[in-house]
Amino acid sequence: MPERKGQYTVTLSGRPTILGYSAVVGKKEGEGPLGRYFDMVFEDTTLGEKTWEKAESALQREAFTRALNKAGISPSQVNYMFAGDLLNQSIASTFGLREFGVPLMGQFGACSTMAQTLALAAIFVDSGAADICAAITSSHFCAAERQFRFPLEYGGQRPPTSQWTATAAGAVIVGFGGNGVKIADVTVGYITDFGINDTNNMGAAMAPAAAETLNAYLIDTGTRPDDYDLIVTGDLGAIGSELFRELMERKSFQLGANYSDCGMMLYDRSRQDVHAGGSGCGCSASVLCSYILSKMTSGELKNVLFIATGALMSPTSSQQGESIPGIAHLCHLVKTE
Amino acid sequence: MPERKGQYTVTLSGRPTILGYSAVVGKKEGEGPLGRYFDMVFEDTTLGEKTWEKAESALQREAFTRALNKAGISPSQVNYMFAGDLLNQSIASTFGLREFGVPLMGQFGACSTMAQTLALAAIFVDSGAADICAAITSSHFCAAERQFRFPLEYGGQRPPTSQWTATAAGAVIVGFGGNGVKIADVTVGYITDFGINDTNNMGAAMAPAAAETLNAYLIDTGTRPDDYDLIVTGDLGAIGSELFRELMERKSFQLGANYSDCGMMLYDRSRQDVHAGGSGCGCSASVLCSYILSKMTSGELKNVLFIATGALMSPTSSQQGESIPGIAHLCHLVKTE
Repeated sequence: MPERKGQYTVTLSGRPTILGYSAVVGKKEGEGPLGRYFDMVFEDTTLGEKTWEKAESALQREAFTRALNKAGISPSQVNYMFAGDLLNQSIASTFGLREFGVPLMGQFGACSTMAQTLALAAIFVDSGAADICAAITSSHFCAAERQFRFPLEYGGQRPPTSQWTATAAGAVIVGFGGNGVKIADVTVGYITDFGINDTNNMGAAMAPAAAETLNAYLIDTGTRPDDYDLIVTGDLGAIGSELFRELMERKSFQLGANYSDCGMMLYDRSRQDVHAGGSGCGCSASVLCSYILSKMTSGELKNVLFIATGALMSPTSSQQGESIPGIAHLCHLVKTE
Repeated sequence: MPERKGQYTVTLSGRPTILGYSAVVGKKEGEGPLGRYFDMVFEDTTLGEKTWEKAESALQREAFTRALNKAGISPSQVNYMFAGDLLNQSIASTFGLREFGVPLMGQFGACSTMAQTLALAAIFVDSGAADICAAITSSHFCAAERQFRFPLEYGGQRPPTSQWTATAAGAVIVGFGGNGVKIADVTVGYITDFGINDTNNMGAAMAPAAAETLNAYLIDTGTRPDDYDLIVTGDLGAIGSELFRELMERKSFQLGANYSDCGMMLYDRSRQDVHAGGSGCGCSASVLCSYILSKMTSGELKNVLFIATGALMSPTSSQQGESIPGIAHLCHLVKTE
């Protein structure tokens, strides 16, 4: 049963289990340091589809299908899919998941979507509203570039603060039973806006939200950063993650070597041209559903805080002079045996 | 506690209560048959803002603030906001609700958003994951036209099958206690796609989804349409609601005079130029949060099925030749005393 703990956190006393998970990625992500952890690397990032948007849908379909297979579960056993993405009207999810016949609640949390969907899946299972839920998200570099910035053909310059939208999808199946990784607590964040309006510096816009959410969780649970094997943010990148460390320090929480960022883990910045690091819903999703969950399954990591971060702007809001509201959601994952 | 009933339905045994609700609308909606039921009619649909998108944000802010006031609740007492809209990256919600400091889970269900957010709010409260939740959504004719079709300045012709996106927002506060309207059951729908690709005939694209969801609910609960005072779909309009009747008949459920559609209720088609009826997230939201909930509060309606419907396409998916996937979510509302 979900129980409220402190002001912002919900403890899931039944500890719903991750029954299956999968990450599928594009060529560049496959060439990164986590390459061998992914279930599938698509050398051809069109996935044989005619458009980038359809390719992103295919990524989601692939991740969900593989997660189901690994869990030994059929689509008809899944009560709800929680899914979302960065494309206008979430078409990567809608068209990618259309064929499964599973009740769908579309989610929008920008790049925080993996944590938001996982939190919802866990709460639904823990409460008895569902037996089995899926949490699914994706992003695609080429679809995101032409929607948020410029079509690739334009050959636009990218400033050093900019991040690289991951071509990747992740899917998690949540239910009860088995001795897999469990979701112990969830902290849903509120919007934090420090007035940053540089859409090429999203890490800085999201760092304050990540700090608010982690701070809320640590206060609610009475724990400290060094109680965890790994604290990992979604896609703050090089600049955002340094800012995040500073902001946590101001809140009197020192982050040690156990802190990392999915945007820094997905690529090797010294040999891959990604500027400040990775981003996109698929960034934290694919790092969670490959490296993190496999290290937890093997018991190398036992106690992890996964904090996915989102920048809730659109090209329209930026053109109208608005700043970039940030948000971050946290899932506390544990492996007990 | 939420309990699963049949294949698709969740019964909320604690029966969460609607503690407050509010609908605010634009001039045209205020001139319609439900004019006197709205909390506020904005004669100036810019709401004093510089852009249509900011005006839509202001509508959400206004609806949420009024719903809180009517419930006698402060924002700090609200554990979660579930909110969404039709604009790219849901900016009406993000910017409209940014200032409240309430944890936010952004939702995307196109025009089904009012039912989706209400279902989530009710499940969270019933499960103990939250004490108080808010469900909020909006649409704005001028913002929707320029995003989905043409800027108003273009003066495009609208075919008779087209619907009029409502300039409206609705907000509901859900918690326990009091003798208000209660949410008894929830049925979340799956995507239904009959291959319709005419974006000027969304009612036809959504009708099959509404029929699937109502059919699932009736089978799960062993009830029949005439067990309810009112069965109301979201925004099928004149064409979609006739189709919906036919599809239900093929499923051996005859809908009587107790069936209506929010898109048909919001405007007077004989004197207001809305072609096939109203649409948009704000359409079903504003009809629910004015006429329906006030008739339930007074006891004139006691047993209502609210089925909001969504068309999950984007201009990009339509340009790429895709059909329009439909979805519909149902909330069973009761007033017992």
